This record gives sequence, structure tokens and C-alpha cells, in this order.
Amino acid sequence: MHGGDLSDTIVALATPQGVGALAVIRVSGKHALELANKIFHGKDLSAAPTHTVHVGTIRDGDAIIDEVVVALFKGPKSFTKEDIVEITCHGSMFIVKQVVMLIIHGGARLANPGEFTQRAFLNGQFDLAQAEAIADLIHADSEASRRAAMDQMRGGFSKEIKLLREELIHFASMIELELDFSEEDVEFANRSELKSLINNLLVKISSLIDSFEIGNVIKNGIPTVIAGKPNAGKSTLLNLLLKEERAIVSEIAGTTRDTIEDEINLGGIAFRFIDTAGLREAQDEIEALGVEKTHKKLEEAGLILFLFDLTAESMDSILTEIEWLEAQPAPFIAIGNKADRSTELHIKDFEELPHTLAMSAFKDGDLVRLERAILKKVNINEINTGSTVVTNLRHQQELVNTEHALQQVIQGIDKGITNDILAMEIRQALHHLGEITGEITTDDLLENIFSKFCIGK
Amino acid sequence: MHGGDLSDTIVALATPQGVGALAVIRVSGKHALELANKIFHGKDLSAAPTHTVHVGTIRDGDAIIDEVVVALFKGPKSFTKEDIVEITCHGSMFIVKQVVMLIIHGGARLANPGEFTQRAFLNGQFDLAQAEAIADLIHADSEASRRAAMDQMRGGFSKEIKLLREELIHFASMIELELDFSEEDVEFANRSELKSLINNLLVKISSLIDSFEIGNVIKNGIPTVIAGKPNAGKSTLLNLLLKEERAIVSEIAGTTRDTIEDEINLGGIAFRFIDTAGLREAQDEIEALGVEKTHKKLEEAGLILFLFDLTAESMDSILTEIEWLEAQPAPFIAIGNKADRSTELHIKDFEELPHTLAMSAFKDGDLVRLERAILKKVNINEINTGSTVVTNLRHQQELVNTEHALQQVIQGIDKGITNDILAMEIRQALHHLGEITGEITTDDLLENIFSKFCIGK
Repeated sequence: MHGGDLSDTIVALATPQGVGALAVIRVSGKHALELANKIFHGKDLSAAPTHTVHVGTIRDGDAIIDEVVVALFKGPKSFTKEDIVEITCHGSMFIVKQVVMLIIHGGARLANPGEFTQRAFLNGQFDLAQAEAIADLIHADSEASRRAAMDQMRGGFSKEIKLLREELIHFASMIELELDFSEEDVEFANRSELKSLINNLLVKISSLIDSFEIGNVIKNGIPTVIAGKPNAGKSTLLNLLLKEERAIVSEIAGTTRDTIEDEINLGGIAFRFIDTAGLREAQDEIEALGVEKTHKKLEEAGLILFLFDLTAESMDSILTEIEWLEAQPAPFIAIGNKADRSTELHIKDFEELPHTLAMSAFKDGDLVRLERAILKKVNINEINTGSTVVTNLRHQQELVNTEHALQQVIQGIDKGITNDILAMEIRQALHHLGEITGEITTDDLLENIFSKFCIGK
Repeated sequence: MHGGDLSDTIVALATPQGVGALAVIRVSGKHALELANKIFHGKDLSAAPTHTVHVGTIRDGDAIIDEVVVALFKGPKSFTKEDIVEITCHGSMFIVKQVVMLIIHGGARLANPGEFTQRAFLNGQFDLAQAEAIADLIHADSEASRRAAMDQMRGGFSKEIKLLREELIHFASMIELELDFSEEDVEFANRSELKSLINNLLVKISSLIDSFEIGNVIKNGIPTVIAGKPNAGKSTLLNLLLKEERAIVSEIAGTTRDTIEDEINLGGIAFRFIDTAGLREAQDEIEALGVEKTHKKLEEAGLILFLFDLTAESMDSILTEIEWLEAQPAPFIAIGNKADRSTELHIKDFEELPHTLAMSAFKDGDLVRLERAILKKVNINEINTGSTVVTNLRHQQELVNTEHALQQVIQGIDKGITNDILAMEIRQALHHLGEITGEITTDDLLENIFSKFCIGK
């Protein structure tokens, strides 16, 4: 099994790599307390109650490696339901390395990615969809994605799947009861009732499947292209949009590193800006190659912001571009930039065109207008309804599989197929639903899910 | 004062920025418990005992922001001696941002760099030299630097300074007593005894000052140059030296990011490799400019590894280079590479030259021989004596100032200066010693020290 035996004790750095004030090393398993106690000098941890913290030193023989704080979570009252010791040491990768090595030398092994969460799942702390939500939560970079992950982690989505599954299990058992009494020709499960139940389920499942379109936007944000001719003001606009976002994050984190890259949050949704240098700029063959690549990105775009320099473009050339924009799959906003230096007549003509907005990239009020126009374009209200959405591609695929199996059941009833085949089709649907929440798992499935987690989670 | 009022409650992310399993947010101050209690749903924190951890949720109104673990450290039994709450949330910068913002909205403010440590110092948790050692510990990247920082943090260095200061204070009070009785012409402090005491102190201080040379190597590592003609095997050798180091760190951290850059640890000491592309390769004027820069770096080098391709170089050209190497300020090892493809006679001639080592960059045994040769070259034994070394430039400068003031005292005694001037000189020496451990501080000094800390520490 991926992640190895549950009887192992595992250890990993749980906080991000790098220099910081603190780092947390997590140890989980049967021997966690014993291993920590061996290297921790201070209170005797084996006698300490759960949910307490203790100040002391980590020692390698007589040498003091670091002064630390140790937190105890005795199983089953812990994340993994096993004994967990969390060692908070100074945030030096050198010290972390030494402490982890000491624990490994004591008999633990380095945890695989996601192995703590996997253990929590295997020990019944939560179901598989909830476990997956933890990874989503860690990677959440917008209010909507955080909220969706939190809802899923707390079991909102699992509950809906469980209800679907229970209804189906009820009928499956009826059908199987009929199989036991097959020689007596009784019908415990009324066929038209079963059909209407399954049609009800199909409506719910299809609505969940459809919600993935929104779920995907919530989870991954909207790939947004800023395009336009050179000097139309693309980078000025991008920097203006990004400015506040970066300032907040860098202030809290105390660094200026761009963790959020080219991404802004509007109305709880992340807009990721895609580099499409050269779009609509091709002049010779070499550039045309770059344009080819750009067009591929354009196909993935969820929104196009196209900038015109109103002081440089004639209405004719603007019309040509807007025609091209209307042929693109993504919605667009045609932004007439440098409005402050253009004529009123020209601005009026421009704003009479569809999906246009005249502005200056240097004026605050205009930026607010643009942000509003963007939110309107992506149907933000539909996203923020608060109802359950599927954000996970795996779940969506299992729902499609479930839908397919249930459609087979309906067809089977119509064709009057035998009970044993009917029972099999219902079991198939149950299997797919069960794979979402992990009632049914395979090693491959678990491996596939947890290997994508970060180490220490 | 730097860091603002001690009556403020401060908050900061204490773990490194980035995505990880966990992130720790630290809150310290009078209102830490109250502010955390406002947003934490679970146990009532105000009633909870110190050194306990509690599982619950952080909420913004009704919205659940994250599921967290909260650790309580009630003052004075905490790092800052104030109430501290540490909130461990999921390691998403988005969640961290929201939690920190909630605490700020509750009335806390974002902590300045090093402000938690500064508060610990101001509240008497430790002295200034110990506070500085915490920053050194976080940035420690070798066994020797970690050990030196740990020793300093635990008060080893402070104790020595304190002893020096106490001896001096004793005599200062004698002299000042004489001033009170100046009309009676008594001598409480015997002048020749005082002179011999101060000479004793000077020996100790001078030995501490001298230890900075080793201390600097311990703290900052040894700047090491790998040079040689093109194709001598420089990058192969560098990669071989770095390989194991990187593998260990990336395994524990679960990433392949190069946090340790071009650095290896040998015998507990960090060797930082400096890029000196183009050294001894200049062929035209443009390259000569690069060579100029390289020579500057060469002056900072603590060790030069110079590679010869034994299959390509004649003994004459090797001799020319070795002459050049001997004129450099740093010690060097002349490495005859590709020995496996050279003639035995050539190898023998080469190894008869001083500071040479014939090897192949592809053979493990040779790498071990090289590592041993490197350690021998930098007097590793002198570094690992375990006696107190000064690793901090500020401390070294204050010791030099103390030395200067004490020399004035000796000269003063010899010249028979008046007691009031003698007392002033001794006070001056005491002042400089006091600035090391922080008995004497100024806002500028504190600002200068703590602003270099990371945020959250």
C-alpha cells in the first residue's frame, strides 16, 4: 500500500521549507511519543497529558541541537488518530534536518507526501472527499476556493453523496432480496418506483456534474489574457491590477517574493493573468511562431481584456479587432485606454460598440469600473450561491460514471432485463459513488490522490 | 522606540512564507488571549490553563475560515513573557492572510521584524547577546555555526562578558569611593593591583577579539573559489561536492529547490562556492573586465581550489599557475584532475609540487581525499575546540572599544592622572561591555539589531 504500513512511525517537516522564525516537525505513529521522549529533555513526555505543550531541548547525546516546544496529541484525539508529537524548533533548515535525522535514527521513517492525511483517512477520521479537500484548502488562493474546500472538508459534499448512495442502497437491497426469493416471483422493489427514484437521482447527479464548470473556476481561477498592440498600456494595467494584492501579501509575509505571481482576487475569485506577448502583433514569420503559441493559450482563456490606445487607433482598426474578438471562445472586454488624452467624440463612438469600456490605466475610479465590468462578465453571482459545487475533476468523473451506470439501469428496466443484471448495474453505480467518498478504494486510487499532497500533510 | 509600545498586541506569521501543510501565526501582548478568543470557536480560551492546545475553528462572523489548533502560553511563562497565542492553521498564504487580518481588525498590529524577540529582551527573558544569537541560530547552516549560536543563546558568551564586567565594576566602585573621600587622600584601590587586573582583562579581551577570525568562519563559512582553465572539470567537481548535500535537504523538505545554493558542509563548517567564471582565462579586453571582478572575489576567498587537466597541461604551464597561486592571499589546493587518464610520471612530477593533489573528479575515493585535504587546509581543529568564540561583528567592535578604553586606563595610571578621569575611562570600558549584553542600550542600537531579524521572530 502507498505510504507503507500503518505500524510505522512517520516524521516530516510540516511547515514550508526555508528560513523563518519557527518550523514544525510532525511525528505520528505508535512510537511517536517514545521517539520524541528519547531526544527531548525537559518534562517526561510519556507521563504528560494529551493536548499539552512542553518547553525543553532536543539533544543528540550531550549536544543541545535546539530549544523547542513540543505539543502532544495522544491518539485517538489527534489528526491521524494515532499519537502525534509536533516539535516546534527554530526555523533553520539545518536544525530541521538534524532533528528529523535524529527521529529517523530513533526508528521512524520519512513520511510520504500526504501520508499523515492518508492515515487520518484510513483510521476513519474523515472520508476521502474530505481528505482531498485538505489539499485544496492548502492551495486555496481565493475566497471562493477556500470556502468550497472548507465546505468539502467539513463534509458538505460528502453528505450529498452519502444521501444519494443511501437511496440507491435501499433499492439495491430490495432487488437482491428478490434474487433470494427468485423462485417465488415476488417483487419487493416496484419497477416504476425504482425508475422514478433513479430519474430523481439522475437530476441531482447531473446538476452536480454541471456544477463542475463553476467549481473549476472557483478552484483554479479564471485564466485571463491581457492583449493589445504594443504601447496600448498592457503592463501598466497589469501592474495596477496586481499592486494592492502583492502589497498585502508581502507585508504579512515580510518579504517581497511574488508567491501569488500574476494573479488578483476579485469578488472572491482568482484571475490568473496569462502571458500572451505578441498577440495581434505578428509582423514576420518568426513572430508568427510565437503567435501560434499565443493562440493556444487564447483557447484556454476564460476572459480576454483587449486594450486599445484610443489616441492611436482609428475606429476602422478598432472594428477589425472587435470582429476578431467576437470570434474567440472566451468573453472579452474591449478597453479603450488613454481616454484622458482622447477626444470626446472618439470615446463616444468607441463606447457605442459592444463590450467596451473607455478608461485610463492611471485613474483609480476607472480601475474600479473595470473590476466591476470583469465581475459582471464572469457571472460572479452564479459562483457565489453557496450551494454545493464539484471542484474536483476525479469526483466529476466518478459522477459521470455513476450517471452512465444509472442510465443503464433505466434502460434495463425498460427492456425488462433480469434482476441479477439490474442488481449488477446498481452495484456499479454504488461503486462509483463509493469511490468519491472512499467507501471503496484501491491502492492505485489512494496512491494517486495522496502522492499529490505536500510532504508533512 | 523601535517596535512601538509594549502595550500593543502584535501578530505575525512565524513560519516561512509559501504553501505547506501547516503555518503558525503568533500573537503576543496584553490582548492576545482576548483577540484570539473573539475569532476562535471551540473551548473558551480565557478559562483554559497555560501550555495547553485546543482544536477549533477560526471564524469571521458565521463564516468558517479554517480549522486550527491554538496553543496558549500565558505570561510570564512564554517566550516574550507576555500572553502568547500560537494559531496553527493550514499552510495556505490565503488563509494566513485572512487570519492575520482578522486579528488586526480585532485590535492587534502587524509585528515589526524581530519584535517578539525584542519584547522577550525588554521583558528580561534574556540579554542582548542571547537575543542576537536567535537570529544566528535561524540562519545557521553548518554544525559549527549552529553550535556557536546555541552556546551564545544559552548564555555562554554572556557569562564571560558578565565576569569581565563584574571585575571591572568592583574596581570602578573603589575608585569612585576614593572620589567621595578625595579630601582625605585614601587609596581604596591599589594602583598596581588595578593595573595587573586590567592587564589580565586585556589578555582575555584580546583573546576574544582574536577569536572573531575563527568566529567569522564558523558563522559565515569559508568563501571557496573553484578555478582553472576551461574543461579542467570545474563544474563536474562542484556538482560532485554538492550532490549529497542537496539530496538530503531536498528529501526532507520534499522539494528540489536549492535553499543551500552552492554550499557544502565539511567537518561542521560551511564552504560557500563563489562563482569566478573566467579566472585565468582572459583572452581579450572584454573578458579582462570580467577577470577584474573575479580578482576582487579572489581577495575575499578563504580557500582556492585550482583545477589542472593533467592530460592537457605541461609541467611548465602548471608551474606558472602555481607561482601565481602562491602569490594569492588565500591558501590553495592545486588539483591535478583526470589523473586516471594521465601518465604515472606526470602525476608523480605534479604531486611533488607543494599543495597538490592528483585525482579524478569521477572517483569516490578521490573525493574523500580532497575533502580531507580541504579540512586540513582550514585548520578545522582550531575551529572545533568548543571554547567561546566571538561570531558577531558588533560584539567584536565593542570588545575593541573596551580594549581601547582599558589601554587608556593603564596609560592613565602610568601617567598618574586624577581619579575622576580614571573613573571616567573605566566607566567607558564598562559602557562598551554593557552594550554587548544590553545592560546599556539605545533605541538606535535596538533598531539596528532587531530590524535584521525575520518577521514573526
